[in-house]
Amino acid sequence: MISKLPLLFLLVTVSAHAATVEEQVRAVLDKQVEAWNKGDTEGFLDGYSVDTVFVGEKMTRGVEDLKRRYQSRYPTRAAMGKLGFFDLEIHAMGKDYAYVIGRWQLERDKEGGGNVSGVYSLVFRRTAIGWKIVLDHTN
Amino acid sequence: MISKLPLLFLLVTVSAHAATVEEQVRAVLDKQVEAWNKGDTEGFLDGYSVDTVFVGEKMTRGVEDLKRRYQSRYPTRAAMGKLGFFDLEIHAMGKDYAYVIGRWQLERDKEGGGNVSGVYSLVFRRTAIGWKIVLDHTN
Repeated sequence: MISKLPLLFLLVTVSAHAATVEEQVRAVLDKQVEAWNKGDTEGFLDGYSVDTVFVGEKMTRGVEDLKRRYQSRYPTRAAMGKLGFFDLEIHAMGKDYAYVIGRWQLERDKEGGGNVSGVYSLVFRRTAIGWKIVLDHTN
Repeated sequence: MISKLPLLFLLVTVSAHAATVEEQVRAVLDKQVEAWNKGDTEGFLDGYSVDTVFVGEKMTRGVEDLKRRYQSRYPTRAAMGKLGFFDLEIHAMGKDYAYVIGRWQLERDKEGGGNVSGVYSLVFRRTAIGWKIVLDHTN
């Protein structure tokens, strides 16, 4: 038993590290990318608040409308392509909000519509069910 | 003297109303519109933090670069036109941050380039010198 104590201490130390706002927000974005690249639109949308506002060429309100937007623009795996987020800047605003600036890219073959990319800014809010995007401005 | 007391009370009541986050942010936006429409670019830029990030077709960092962007895109009073902000939604995030979604429009004659309009989202931060825009995403 005694020989196992150092490992136990190590585990306790690691788990006691509270993730920063930046790390928590980053984890949501990583999960979104992972979900998208598995063709899991629901998993991707899980990063959004139900009352999210998406500002693109036009405004989309609520995650249900956003789902319809994604389904009509990216109806197939080929159209979804391979998503990547780049040059992320995550800024905590107190402990319950954060904003993010970044670039997105979809790698797609010709059938999927070819590569597309752009910039986005997000506002995240900490909720009872985790960090959620309340504002997504993408172009 | 006694007959003036009710008015005095009224004045005290009005001035004791602390402006909400939404009202304070709204006041900055109103001042920006007023400055722009007088051709006062400096006054307009006063609404921005020195380290602001502007996301448009490309990213502009810092108020000095933003000033150059505005001066090159809107070099004359005709090009500046008459600015209006519409459909503003101001959301407080605690007491030191807020985000804004809105529409902008420049009314311009042909010489100025004609009317243009778009959408924007902003993040405001309360600083020692007032509320300032730290992120402006406009298209």
